[in-house]
Amino acid sequence: MDTLERPATVTQSQRSEIEAQRQATHETRRATVRAMEALLYQPIPVLDHGFIRVIDYMGDDAAVVQAARVSYGAGTKKVREDAGLINYLMRHRHTSPFEMCEIKLHMKLPIFVARQQIRTRTASVNEYSARYSILDREFYMPEPEQLGAQAKSNRQGRGETLTGDEARRVMELLREDAARAYDHYEEMLNETATGETVDPARSGLARELARMNLSVNFYTQWYWKIDLHNLMNFLKLRADAHAQYEIRAYADAMLDILKQWVPLTYAAFMDYRMGAYELSAKGLAIVRRLLRGEQVERESTGMSPGEWRELMETLER
Amino acid sequence: MDTLERPATVTQSQRSEIEAQRQATHETRRATVRAMEALLYQPIPVLDHGFIRVIDYMGDDAAVVQAARVSYGAGTKKVREDAGLINYLMRHRHTSPFEMCEIKLHMKLPIFVARQQIRTRTASVNEYSARYSILDREFYMPEPEQLGAQAKSNRQGRGETLTGDEARRVMELLREDAARAYDHYEEMLNETATGETVDPARSGLARELARMNLSVNFYTQWYWKIDLHNLMNFLKLRADAHAQYEIRAYADAMLDILKQWVPLTYAAFMDYRMGAYELSAKGLAIVRRLLRGEQVERESTGMSPGEWRELMETLER
Amino acid sequence: MDTLERPATVTQSQRSEIEAQRQATHETRRATVRAMEALLYQPIPVLDHGFIRVIDYMGDDAAVVQAARVSYGAGTKKVREDAGLINYLMRHRHTSPFEMCEIKLHMKLPIFVARQQIRTRTASVNEYSARYSILDREFYMPEPEQLGAQAKSNRQGRGETLTGDEARRVMELLREDAARAYDHYEEMLNETATGETVDPARSGLARELARMNLSVNFYTQWYWKIDLHNLMNFLKLRADAHAQYEIRAYADAMLDILKQWVPLTYAAFMDYRMGAYELSAKGLAIVRRLLRGEQVERESTGMSPGEWRELMETLER
Amino acid sequence: MDTLERPATVTQSQRSEIEAQRQATHETRRATVRAMEALLYQPIPVLDHGFIRVIDYMGDDAAVVQAARVSYGAGTKKVREDAGLINYLMRHRHTSPFEMCEIKLHMKLPIFVARQQIRTRTASVNEYSARYSILDREFYMPEPEQLGAQAKSNRQGRGETLTGDEARRVMELLREDAARAYDHYEEMLNETATGETVDPARSGLARELARMNLSVNFYTQWYWKIDLHNLMNFLKLRADAHAQYEIRAYADAMLDILKQWVPLTYAAFMDYRMGAYELSAKGLAIVRRLLRGEQVERESTGMSPGEWRELMETLER
Repeated sequence: MDTLERPATVTQSQRSEIEAQRQATHETRRATVRAMEALLYQPIPVLDHGFIRVIDYMGDDAAVVQAARVSYGAGTKKVREDAGLINYLMRHRHTSPFEMCEIKLHMKLPIFVARQQIRTRTASVNEYSARYSILDREFYMPEPEQLGAQAKSNRQGRGETLTGDEARRVMELLREDAARAYDHYEEMLNETATGETVDPARSGLARELARMNLSVNFYTQWYWKIDLHNLMNFLKLRADAHAQYEIRAYADAMLDILKQWVPLTYAAFMDYRMGAYELSAKGLAIVRRLLRGEQVERESTGMSPGEWRELMETLER
Repeated sequence: MDTLERPATVTQSQRSEIEAQRQATHETRRATVRAMEALLYQPIPVLDHGFIRVIDYMGDDAAVVQAARVSYGAGTKKVREDAGLINYLMRHRHTSPFEMCEIKLHMKLPIFVARQQIRTRTASVNEYSARYSILDREFYMPEPEQLGAQAKSNRQGRGETLTGDEARRVMELLREDAARAYDHYEEMLNETATGETVDPARSGLARELARMNLSVNFYTQWYWKIDLHNLMNFLKLRADAHAQYEIRAYADAMLDILKQWVPLTYAAFMDYRMGAYELSAKGLAIVRRLLRGEQVERESTGMSPGEWRELMETLER
Repeated sequence: MDTLERPATVTQSQRSEIEAQRQATHETRRATVRAMEALLYQPIPVLDHGFIRVIDYMGDDAAVVQAARVSYGAGTKKVREDAGLINYLMRHRHTSPFEMCEIKLHMKLPIFVARQQIRTRTASVNEYSARYSILDREFYMPEPEQLGAQAKSNRQGRGETLTGDEARRVMELLREDAARAYDHYEEMLNETATGETVDPARSGLARELARMNLSVNFYTQWYWKIDLHNLMNFLKLRADAHAQYEIRAYADAMLDILKQWVPLTYAAFMDYRMGAYELSAKGLAIVRRLLRGEQVERESTGMSPGEWRELMETLER
Repeated sequence: MDTLERPATVTQSQRSEIEAQRQATHETRRATVRAMEALLYQPIPVLDHGFIRVIDYMGDDAAVVQAARVSYGAGTKKVREDAGLINYLMRHRHTSPFEMCEIKLHMKLPIFVARQQIRTRTASVNEYSARYSILDREFYMPEPEQLGAQAKSNRQGRGETLTGDEARRVMELLREDAARAYDHYEEMLNETATGETVDPARSGLARELARMNLSVNFYTQWYWKIDLHNLMNFLKLRADAHAQYEIRAYADAMLDILKQWVPLTYAAFMDYRMGAYELSAKGLAIVRRLLRGEQVERESTGMSPGEWRELMETLER
């Protein structure tokens, strides 16, 4: 989606600040990634009003390698190329060298997405405070093709897309309720987002109270800083097919950033984490039997029907 | 507030479960606190629909002392009584012995309070998931005396209480918007909280989407587990006069639990943390000068006006 | 190994304290595990002078289930038995319910083992301080069958066991150097472990300095407290065949404790974590090809020789 | 101490690597601190063979301010200058903006210092592994003026400096025991630090075992990465007069780095944390009484003799 269609996402004053930050360059002796320099400060649009901006980064693929070589000593230097060493670290879950890189993002995201993301406790967060400041009139409205019905098979997911009158009614309710909630928020505050008093005869409710009228699809903002290892843990969880679509949209955008930032680590992550499949002890025994040409019945394996079905699908049987 | 006035807070099935848990007793060799046994499982009401229940605890004051004596060796055994040692630990910020106790709470709290509490990253949390299940029709409505206007002097607090028409209007808006949001939530779900389908001709929107219509004063629930040291860090922050009233209500209830659980630690905490005042280097220099009988002007101290005012108030000058 | 052979491990005064703790029983309404009550306070011997004692625990298998049901709502109650739900949580890495249980251990372990274990940053620790107190004359001596030569194939492991003169010489050097280091430690302290002054004419070096003469095979002690989820992360890493034998000895003892404490969780952990094998995206593609009856050559897979060899061994090809 | 006197501290190959890193400069749009660029990669000597090198940093004072302004909204922009805002944040323990900066250090330090430093669990660490590689023949020997006797009044500190024969004997024991331990380490390994086999007829003990003969004054190395908030927590604890001299030497060197990196934060830290004194509730009541001109006796205050003495000294009474 083009940013031009979404004028409210980044304010005019933010836009000038971004331009100023992008102009200024400095000399540094620190590890520097050209592709990240091109990305710095620019908002990458996510959902209808959200964005992610890279504000700062520390380290690169070589910094992971360098830290690993502190641990494993000089001997590793000759044996393995950088890519090979990064694959090795990822494969054997030697996670500490990946903690040696860090990234800082500025994000705008719906409150219900923020509530999921904050569960990753290893990030540092500075969130826009609605006790101090007034939230913008921006709320998330799903695209029509995202209006999934409650899944039947799976208590947590989405099934078929709603259509026709039901879809229209949902969009109408979401839009009207959010708009009304914001109108009443301003009315209770007795102040507009731009700081104008509505009615001089009234006092206006405290911001920390008035905000409670806003629904969880309103957008909030934060600075979110995390190391590379914990970023990958977050992505493993939230770029997964079982994650809710809306947080996955943010995770997918972060995956793109990861690819620019640390391409060797990204490739290893896709192979050994995102695309990996963990065989349980039972699952491994089954695969061995199948490879020996045995006929295997679920009843002989100790697996539950759900597990068995998942395994057979994964093995493309 | 009496629980009887608030019938919806704890459901009938929860009530039976609580009774069953309270009936069953076991023999244990673990450290046991009689006052906590009396408290276990019982909901302590907070705000209009919230509660805190103690689900489990590990350790007591003696467990703090025991851990400290591992660190400091047998020699300490004779010198200090338990209370003295706990005071010493608290005063000198020897925090690790306090990590040796743990508490687990079941809480029901408004989403905007949960959003503040979750910032304490050292707790373990299992929150009710509105992706899986339907939230109850329960939202927070402030008591009339809590309807503070936006503070003038302080960008984050509440000032005078709203009265008359303005107060009435605020209550009306909050109540109507929340009730309507819940009605529409059920309509979109096409299902009631008790699981009945509203209109068999419709599919119903996925729970993970429909919930976005609910405002942040709706109640959520979670299990929240934390060690004694980090609980005190939380309380120092959230039982403080600068904390928002609604989270302070929960923090105050936890302070009462703390007092039952570890009375010696509680006393030390009140003296050395909650009631303490930290003099900066500049502040200490000023106090020394004042005690020597000098006349001290702010201009000679390097303090900002705000700092100076706060210090003078604290010293009761 | 029988504790009777190792009289120095637990001192006489500790023994009396243990007896006293084991005598005292209390009534509690908390979740209680009979097998753990039998285990409480008793030292389980590890290595030549080490031990693990369970000091306290919080929760049981049912507490994991209970926390999961807060998250996933009442609906799960009918569908799944406890064991099935625990398997499901473990399989899908829903880790937070496992954080709801906690265990506290008293351990005696060589410093070099403690240095590995402390890398698990999610535990709370109170270590015996050699700044305050004098360490005991106890150092780790490997059993003859543990005297491995440096592995050739693997830079970090042990190979064949040393024998004959070389083995004898190693034992002699280790024993003599540690004994001499301790003698000189006491000499520098001018004090014995039991607090007697050696030479009244001397001052004695500060404990915090004298300890620097002791080698890393000397034993230290600590209280170590961790939640069930993080304990399993620790065990996955340290009960693994690649872990150093000495820390594995402690991890194995903890695995036994785990089995007593939370038998359903233990069974799920052994199946889905300890005994599991993670197929990378490449590895999964290979398994699918093999199951279709294809002939697969390493060169066509993108795998390194080491990866390929490991996969073929795991699949028993 | 001049690095020239300490030739073994940084190896020749490290020296070339450092030079290469210092030559390469890049253009960056990231926040850049000129004083830190001058410092990058250079070893700062600490103790007799240790050092600290800054490997990377993220953010500056302005990054703290920028993060704070996300939280507190645009309104703060006009009101407060950067220094004033940083002072405000430090004074009111608004810690999250300080988490937005990060630093990565390469350190060489004695094992017993590393054992204290690792207790700060909020850092990321990659330590040189003596399972993989052979440690250098470098051990810490205190300067003669650091040879404190055990303090009488304080169970953990150092008192008077040892002199004459006792001092000489201590130095001799420490030096001889460490040298012998290293000789025997090489003998058991059957390999020198430069990788030469000593006796082709022997196998050599595994590195992970042989290292256990080394005492805790041997030097280890690590990469240590931490955010600014947690670095200050570390420094508050370890640059304190009660910290052991040897770790304080590292903390003092870090304080100097802090001053170069974030001068405004450094100044606020020195005023509000390092130089601060926390009055307990009892202590504050006493100060108020004294300021009113009252005569205060300890007995009337509830303070212990130790507390009272400390307070009177701090107030310079």
